[in-house]
Amino acid sequence: MSANIIHPVILCGGSGTRLWPKSRKEKPKPFLPLLGTRTLFRAACDRASDPAQFAPPMVVAGAAHIDLIKAQAPPTGLSIIVEPAARNTAPAIALAAARLDPDAIMLVCPSDHHIADEVAFQAAAAAAAKMASAGRLVAFGITPDRPETGYGYIKRGAALDDGFVIERFVEKPDLERAKAFLADGGYAWNGGIFVFRAGQLLEELTIHRPAMADAVLASVQSGREDGICFHPDAAMFEGIEGDSVDYAVMENTQNAAMVPASMGWSDIGDWSALQDALCDGNDASNQAPEKAELVDCSRVMVVSDGPRVSAIGLEDIIIVVDGDEVLVTHRGGTQKVGKLGGASNQ
Amino acid sequence: MSANIIHPVILCGGSGTRLWPKSRKEKPKPFLPLLGTRTLFRAACDRASDPAQFAPPMVVAGAAHIDLIKAQAPPTGLSIIVEPAARNTAPAIALAAARLDPDAIMLVCPSDHHIADEVAFQAAAAAAAKMASAGRLVAFGITPDRPETGYGYIKRGAALDDGFVIERFVEKPDLERAKAFLADGGYAWNGGIFVFRAGQLLEELTIHRPAMADAVLASVQSGREDGICFHPDAAMFEGIEGDSVDYAVMENTQNAAMVPASMGWSDIGDWSALQDALCDGNDASNQAPEKAELVDCSRVMVVSDGPRVSAIGLEDIIIVVDGDEVLVTHRGGTQKVGKLGGASNQ
Repeated sequence: MSANIIHPVILCGGSGTRLWPKSRKEKPKPFLPLLGTRTLFRAACDRASDPAQFAPPMVVAGAAHIDLIKAQAPPTGLSIIVEPAARNTAPAIALAAARLDPDAIMLVCPSDHHIADEVAFQAAAAAAAKMASAGRLVAFGITPDRPETGYGYIKRGAALDDGFVIERFVEKPDLERAKAFLADGGYAWNGGIFVFRAGQLLEELTIHRPAMADAVLASVQSGREDGICFHPDAAMFEGIEGDSVDYAVMENTQNAAMVPASMGWSDIGDWSALQDALCDGNDASNQAPEKAELVDCSRVMVVSDGPRVSAIGLEDIIIVVDGDEVLVTHRGGTQKVGKLGGASNQ
Repeated sequence: MSANIIHPVILCGGSGTRLWPKSRKEKPKPFLPLLGTRTLFRAACDRASDPAQFAPPMVVAGAAHIDLIKAQAPPTGLSIIVEPAARNTAPAIALAAARLDPDAIMLVCPSDHHIADEVAFQAAAAAAAKMASAGRLVAFGITPDRPETGYGYIKRGAALDDGFVIERFVEKPDLERAKAFLADGGYAWNGGIFVFRAGQLLEELTIHRPAMADAVLASVQSGREDGICFHPDAAMFEGIEGDSVDYAVMENTQNAAMVPASMGWSDIGDWSALQDALCDGNDASNQAPEKAELVDCSRVMVVSDGPRVSAIGLEDIIIVVDGDEVLVTHRGGTQKVGKLGGASNQ
């Protein structure tokens, strides 16, 4: 396999409860066609599917979703690592790294984000891969277009050939700081997309989280193959104290770098974010299926799995009909969806 | 039968399209339990069911709704006049009058209104019956509690023993005039509730709408009984040019009188009116079934035939889920519901 080939590692751990009732425990967000006809998971596979640049993806997911993944897999095939338990991103990524050649370049992607400009994504992946080959742990730094308070930020430092050193990671800011970040120009969103040399990721994890690294490696050594699935040893993995790759590695390493990415990215974190991704810059537009009827409405989004929705005189309202659940929320309230009884008591 | 007995005549002609999607062609507004557990039709029967004051009701309805009427009939029984066609209220009322003894006192009531204070209703009916026996055509004048622009008004004139002469009828006013009417105190809403001596109603109709009166009488003479149903001759009835009893008789007669009625009346004309009737004076309250979840909501009404409704951050919004239709409307838009595709293309 060419040394330039990138190995996509697609993480399917998110529950997407803020996109309830469409996203449900048995079929969460990654496996829904929230934008267009492809599911977010399938789109994540497809944008990293050019065999000239990418190997077939390695998917890390829980046992509950293996059938969905197999059903939605791209024709080029994939392999699956079945997480015995959810332990956040650092152990999940380390599982994949341990299954790859130490010199393999891995591109870690969430399975439930939207990226409008796939060419820009692929270019950023190529730039990041070059930096990773040269010993960097690389984060995609998403160019911000608004003072978002819902994301962590990356402050860039000195320029490198294909990106920048990361000066520091910044937790979700308040609005005032987010505005300052946007004005400053030196801050990017941390989109949770990373490029590593697999061996280096494991080496750094061993330095910063030795117990986690040991447990992951042991669970892989004692794991078993089952067709396209690999099952790490459950008991060893379940004992891990979970942590994000940001906390466990990226904030501790001396080799953190970032590649700027301006690619129409959204984490589709809640219904408002989905509406923003769908409205295509036209803030006053409605998003609704053809059979819906909207009278005197602006910035209204309708999602329905069957029933016709008729709306009159609404502004900034999102309506979701799914099976035995109907959600009607103001755009300003979509962060609270995951806390609703229907979403949290599944 | 005692001369004081009143014969309720309950009109079931309304389609209630502004209460779509709950109110539908095959089961319109009168036959729905919009307030509590009784349907509006059954409540109209029940409030005029005391045998000391009322005879069993005579219901005027279209053939499509006979089964609903029989199913919802009070245990004391009723008779039904099956309208061969919808020709507005004057012919419908004349059909009933022609089936009653000329000296019978008839109380004409819509089947789809709400009256909170049944004792006040019965007292007004008794007062109106006395005036009708003395030769008056009597309208209930509903004491207004707000400058409503959606109803016609009655201007009262000289006082009589049990009410007032009607000076004139006033079409739906604009807001300024409605405010002036409210301040004046001499204006009441025309709620479409009337008390007549049956023979006198027919005499006056013969004077003011002779062709209509002839056609109604002929259709009754050529009609046929079928159990509790009476079928006027269809061809004769269908030839009638429809008109309201207000236009055909009340605005022309020299004998118009009104009885003041303060009885918690609402025509439940649209979803806002239903919410007003349900909120019981607490304007900020929500009306929702127990299994609905409302977060940061005020003046929100939820009606659902099954699915759970969850709502966040809404104000002045009405949500109706019924079968394959979902309606979400601002309170200010409820007059437009009847014009929606779903409501008008049934």
